[in-house]
Amino acid sequence: MKLSSRAESHLFKALDNFAIELPSWGFADTGTRFGKFFQPAAASTVEEKFHDAGLVHKLTGACPTVAVHVLWDFTPGSDPNVTRRIAKKHGVRIGSINPNVFQDQQYKLGSFCSPDAKARADALEHTLDCIDIGKAVGSDSLSMWLADGTNYPGQDSIYRRKRELEKAFKKIVEVMKKKWPRATMFIEYKPFEPAFYHTDIADWGMAAAFCMSCAGTSGKAKVLVDTGHHLPGCNIEHIVAFLLSENLLGGFHFNDRKYADDDLTLGSIDPYAVFRIFDQIVQYAFERGMPEGKLPGVAYMVDQSHNLKPKLEAMVQTVDQAQRLFAKANLVDRKALAKAQGTGDIVGAETALRNAYETDVTPLLARWRRSHDLPADPLAALRKSGVIDKLGKERAKARKERGETQSASYA
Amino acid sequence: MKLSSRAESHLFKALDNFAIELPSWGFADTGTRFGKFFQPAAASTVEEKFHDAGLVHKLTGACPTVAVHVLWDFTPGSDPNVTRRIAKKHGVRIGSINPNVFQDQQYKLGSFCSPDAKARADALEHTLDCIDIGKAVGSDSLSMWLADGTNYPGQDSIYRRKRELEKAFKKIVEVMKKKWPRATMFIEYKPFEPAFYHTDIADWGMAAAFCMSCAGTSGKAKVLVDTGHHLPGCNIEHIVAFLLSENLLGGFHFNDRKYADDDLTLGSIDPYAVFRIFDQIVQYAFERGMPEGKLPGVAYMVDQSHNLKPKLEAMVQTVDQAQRLFAKANLVDRKALAKAQGTGDIVGAETALRNAYETDVTPLLARWRRSHDLPADPLAALRKSGVIDKLGKERAKARKERGETQSASYA
Amino acid sequence: MKLSSRAESHLFKALDNFAIELPSWGFADTGTRFGKFFQPAAASTVEEKFHDAGLVHKLTGACPTVAVHVLWDFTPGSDPNVTRRIAKKHGVRIGSINPNVFQDQQYKLGSFCSPDAKARADALEHTLDCIDIGKAVGSDSLSMWLADGTNYPGQDSIYRRKRELEKAFKKIVEVMKKKWPRATMFIEYKPFEPAFYHTDIADWGMAAAFCMSCAGTSGKAKVLVDTGHHLPGCNIEHIVAFLLSENLLGGFHFNDRKYADDDLTLGSIDPYAVFRIFDQIVQYAFERGMPEGKLPGVAYMVDQSHNLKPKLEAMVQTVDQAQRLFAKANLVDRKALAKAQGTGDIVGAETALRNAYETDVTPLLARWRRSHDLPADPLAALRKSGVIDKLGKERAKARKERGETQSASYA
Amino acid sequence: MKLSSRAESHLFKALDNFAIELPSWGFADTGTRFGKFFQPAAASTVEEKFHDAGLVHKLTGACPTVAVHVLWDFTPGSDPNVTRRIAKKHGVRIGSINPNVFQDQQYKLGSFCSPDAKARADALEHTLDCIDIGKAVGSDSLSMWLADGTNYPGQDSIYRRKRELEKAFKKIVEVMKKKWPRATMFIEYKPFEPAFYHTDIADWGMAAAFCMSCAGTSGKAKVLVDTGHHLPGCNIEHIVAFLLSENLLGGFHFNDRKYADDDLTLGSIDPYAVFRIFDQIVQYAFERGMPEGKLPGVAYMVDQSHNLKPKLEAMVQTVDQAQRLFAKANLVDRKALAKAQGTGDIVGAETALRNAYETDVTPLLARWRRSHDLPADPLAALRKSGVIDKLGKERAKARKERGETQSASYA
Repeated sequence: MKLSSRAESHLFKALDNFAIELPSWGFADTGTRFGKFFQPAAASTVEEKFHDAGLVHKLTGACPTVAVHVLWDFTPGSDPNVTRRIAKKHGVRIGSINPNVFQDQQYKLGSFCSPDAKARADALEHTLDCIDIGKAVGSDSLSMWLADGTNYPGQDSIYRRKRELEKAFKKIVEVMKKKWPRATMFIEYKPFEPAFYHTDIADWGMAAAFCMSCAGTSGKAKVLVDTGHHLPGCNIEHIVAFLLSENLLGGFHFNDRKYADDDLTLGSIDPYAVFRIFDQIVQYAFERGMPEGKLPGVAYMVDQSHNLKPKLEAMVQTVDQAQRLFAKANLVDRKALAKAQGTGDIVGAETALRNAYETDVTPLLARWRRSHDLPADPLAALRKSGVIDKLGKERAKARKERGETQSASYA
Repeated sequence: MKLSSRAESHLFKALDNFAIELPSWGFADTGTRFGKFFQPAAASTVEEKFHDAGLVHKLTGACPTVAVHVLWDFTPGSDPNVTRRIAKKHGVRIGSINPNVFQDQQYKLGSFCSPDAKARADALEHTLDCIDIGKAVGSDSLSMWLADGTNYPGQDSIYRRKRELEKAFKKIVEVMKKKWPRATMFIEYKPFEPAFYHTDIADWGMAAAFCMSCAGTSGKAKVLVDTGHHLPGCNIEHIVAFLLSENLLGGFHFNDRKYADDDLTLGSIDPYAVFRIFDQIVQYAFERGMPEGKLPGVAYMVDQSHNLKPKLEAMVQTVDQAQRLFAKANLVDRKALAKAQGTGDIVGAETALRNAYETDVTPLLARWRRSHDLPADPLAALRKSGVIDKLGKERAKARKERGETQSASYA
Repeated sequence: MKLSSRAESHLFKALDNFAIELPSWGFADTGTRFGKFFQPAAASTVEEKFHDAGLVHKLTGACPTVAVHVLWDFTPGSDPNVTRRIAKKHGVRIGSINPNVFQDQQYKLGSFCSPDAKARADALEHTLDCIDIGKAVGSDSLSMWLADGTNYPGQDSIYRRKRELEKAFKKIVEVMKKKWPRATMFIEYKPFEPAFYHTDIADWGMAAAFCMSCAGTSGKAKVLVDTGHHLPGCNIEHIVAFLLSENLLGGFHFNDRKYADDDLTLGSIDPYAVFRIFDQIVQYAFERGMPEGKLPGVAYMVDQSHNLKPKLEAMVQTVDQAQRLFAKANLVDRKALAKAQGTGDIVGAETALRNAYETDVTPLLARWRRSHDLPADPLAALRKSGVIDKLGKERAKARKERGETQSASYA
Repeated sequence: MKLSSRAESHLFKALDNFAIELPSWGFADTGTRFGKFFQPAAASTVEEKFHDAGLVHKLTGACPTVAVHVLWDFTPGSDPNVTRRIAKKHGVRIGSINPNVFQDQQYKLGSFCSPDAKARADALEHTLDCIDIGKAVGSDSLSMWLADGTNYPGQDSIYRRKRELEKAFKKIVEVMKKKWPRATMFIEYKPFEPAFYHTDIADWGMAAAFCMSCAGTSGKAKVLVDTGHHLPGCNIEHIVAFLLSENLLGGFHFNDRKYADDDLTLGSIDPYAVFRIFDQIVQYAFERGMPEGKLPGVAYMVDQSHNLKPKLEAMVQTVDQAQRLFAKANLVDRKALAKAQGTGDIVGAETALRNAYETDVTPLLARWRRSHDLPADPLAALRKSGVIDKLGKERAKARKERGETQSASYA
């Protein structure tokens, strides 16, 4: 597929605006319930996490912000701007604020939904603290993923839990409107894990209902689509299109999966499915008559668990993959597509999509990168740099000096 | 589990109000795409279908109404009261009206969502006709299952389809409000089949959004939950509870499944899951403080494909099974359950459910049936009666006389 | 990715040997249980089916053989060579012979597994007839897909059914060894549909066990992998590799799916997954040290249900898609891959695969096609030719003259 | 359903022989990758684990043996009979020996399948050590669950991994034959987790193939079915029947699931499915003409993750549930079932199963328990005893004295 220079310029503009937020926790050691495999270069400290995020941004030019987990990236009681300054030092900004209301022992039966009033109150207090932090560090979104749910039929009243959750979201939005008016609350959904019978926000429909009940059509609460949080077979791009058309799409947590919430790197299992998500976003802009190269405002965030892949490699590869599939979606001949759709020409319409998908965008991306003084192949550049080895040595030493021992036992 | 006479009287009252609507098409020959296996006693004519429905009602006392498919149970242009009188003759009434906008060749690319304006207009016209019929025959619901969807990525614009569908539902509700004010429109959802890439109303969230956009909180449009229309693992009772709490649960299409939309008889694969659906309904009434034995108004309808089981046996078995699991759900000690839930006693709460589920309600149901002059074991009564053999002979002869040949070929 | 001329010559040799068998039934009207949508150009007669298969072969050069369904493509009692001559006339040969033991009314409860001895005997007799036909028409494979299974727990004894099936397969192989020694029996598996509780040959493990019990390691019975016949999430390429390493892989029925056995066109939903299947086949040859461009003998067959797409377009598109993904799999740098695998370089190994997958092979395939005097873009050539319109008119007329009426009703 | 005294005596005999092995790790704190919630009464030491297992055996009379994880329940280099004596002290014996070749850092890329020769050798050495331990402590089975697999397409050669695994299993069986002739090796399978792209032993077919390649029909290697290790929709009882008929069923790891490998308590989600597994085992005995009350030798083991339920309660509840469903399966009228099956009476056959399933076996089990001087309701007895509270206090104190801190952080 040959691009006209006009088309290429639109695509470059779209790429310029395509920012992918990295999660601070994506650089730290993670694992499964059967254990963690440690990597010498894994980031342990806030400083190291932001260093790594900054490095990925330097290599890709696409990752100006970093999502933070309040429990892990801030010190309770101390100035949140410490973290902000660390970010700045590494050339990035603080992105989405993620409260953590699933880890403490008191959240065993849930957070906002717990039968324990103390747990509910603490979850709310923590979240209100996050609002203060978010405002202080210049973030513009609060990202709510709750592990709330039950493991057994009968364990708790689904009705009571829903009422408590609605109440909490209303309070949070109320406070946000006052204190942090520029920010949006994202509500994430997930069908299961860590809850294995029912999860209080199990699907996009529930997330959307909670958004509506706490914020109505104000746009203060929107749905967050984690690409790994769906039942087998689910048509995710359909959900994305539906949410966009309802003005309820807040953003994404990117990752890929084959079975459950596998948290593999984006596009590693089903790249065509990721392409189709981007396709719906570009198609939305096309149908709305938005100017070429302009797309609806959606937050793109990575949320993956790099259990085996070197974390820096995994992250750069993810950003590259996202840009590839995003670029392809921007190459679809929308007019030809619309014409084929209008006449029921199924094969013609599909071909319009496939021509774009099968285009090798490597040279295109290389040109875009060079135009921004970025390495044409950021993954190759990273691998050649030897930085992972170097960090591995430094960080192993630093951990030793700090007297850290690593324990991965499940039992 | 011993019931006090007061508890038994509440249960009997609940059973009295537990009406299960039978589908006229459940008595006719059905099959898979690989072919149909014919049964001599299958109903071919409207008269035969209502005869069979009437017989099931006589045996069970629980099936006063029959859902009809307009295309199959009415003659275009003739008085719909012909069908109503047939129903009356067999001791039943006409229940939900089901338009059929998936079978005609023009619906190849969809009905209300088709890119073809003529198909869309015809679908609407047919549905408006159904409103006239529904009103004429004294029905009180319009049941919308659409096969609309696409088979391939890119085949059509999901956005355009959604807009057209919203428009159609608005028009339908508008007309219903004027002409048929007592009736409710049910919107059914299904993840796939016959569409294999995307289905325009794919899940409860989409069905609910369409209800809201056409009828708001008026209650004129509600969601219909077909128990076979979910992705693997989906927690259906959670959806039921969520819809109830949003005042959006219209009713059910009952059937069971192991893999996809298998349309097996209710509870034949996972009876505990059906019990849990009823449990949420009873729990809702309990938490709302409704009087004992009283439950929220929900339409219970059977929608199964009796490909192998004798149709009359399958239907009686289904009604019996529904009553069993419904009765068990009414046996749960709600106060003990609430207490265990409130203290995080998971095993105690589960035990409250299990004690009810594991109760053998056969004697209880027999008592309720005898109190209504019904056979204590309706399935056994049907099997002993020899009626299926008799109908088989009569209907084979009648088909021969009408010159009908049966063709089941897929190829 | 730049290919050396040596590499291109190996690839061309691999493409030369990559034959894809078309199913005669893929050109006829098909549908779902909800109805069939007719296409004017659909093939109705054996002559028309072979005409269409011949046309696809002319356009792609890759489809020399046609799989036949004995019930649909042969006239009982007449010379099977009639069909063979029709095939020859259209430039193709007869491929795999498919008995049909699922359509007759007597097979309601199964064929070889039925509790009815007459049904079992008839299924065997029909299959033995197929052997005679297969031998007569020069085919070299017998393809066994059985719909045998049950819809309800308890419906039949799984043990008895298994014993009967083993007995039947033994008899079939015994007769094949005598009468048709060059041929292989393929045993296909499927988890569900049309049986919805249990299917007697439900997975590859059962198919393999039946192969072993009737043919041991003789290679007379091998497993047939239909890409649509797996439970959600199943890693098909792993099964392919496992079967290859056990010398039990017979071949494929190609199609794609999103939910169940959707029978969509190959690669239309998940092209990367198809690529990975080919990758395992090429990798097998590489690890075995087979000469470059040479691959293990595997039968590639299409089995799709073109319910909406024009049948000829769907078939040409499928062949093109198969060739694309096959070519990509042949482009993987196996030595680089092996090196990365050996050192646990996960990202490096993955990159070896992705580099090949992301290569646009359009120009490569165009060169290969031109070298065989084929159109560089067979789908475009078909669409430009206007042949589908022409056939549509001719065949509509012919059907009318034959007095055929088309009925698609499910009810 | 009324039982004759003869039938009850057969059932009691079957219950007498129905032993359920408990896992030592089922009494310890476990969690998900998102964290662990600690229970004061959770067992930390080998002594505590066996105490708890002994208590469950005392309450249920059905759990004479305890499965051990070598890494967690034995001290390297010290006498394994230490553990044996602890078991004896608590009234139980050591059951299945479970090597652990997934937890050490060196197993990051697999154990027997790792590309790293050292990891492979260490896995083998550890397993051979387990054989010595097993023999020493009087166990009679070695239970092999491997976490081996890959996370990304291309990560490793599936062929090489398979060859290495075959080699290892051959070696293990060879050594077992010499040193530990009375024991059987069980090979477990699992579709995914912790590997998310491919798992080297992914399904029963692969497990069976490995059994055959290392032990042939000798019976030294058999398949272990973990009820939670299947893809969605999988018909587990069919696999059980298939394995039984191939003489390849070794035993079970019991648990229940709704989504993935949720490790919930047996029968808590789908009790009818568990009943159907037992039904196939009893049916096998019936069809083989085994004496009534006698069943094929199968190892029943629990493998659950009691993340939220009190561990002792969960275990007693599980044993009770297993006995209930096992008893029900023994109540099926096999002759009536066979008759209905033989005549294609689907509803009749299903009814035979359902009559047994719907029987309330509480009084029956109470009688059996009283005849063995066991509490009629072991779960109620446990809850009334207050032992969990008591243990909670003692163990909290003991942990404090040992200076243990509990850490559950995922990040």
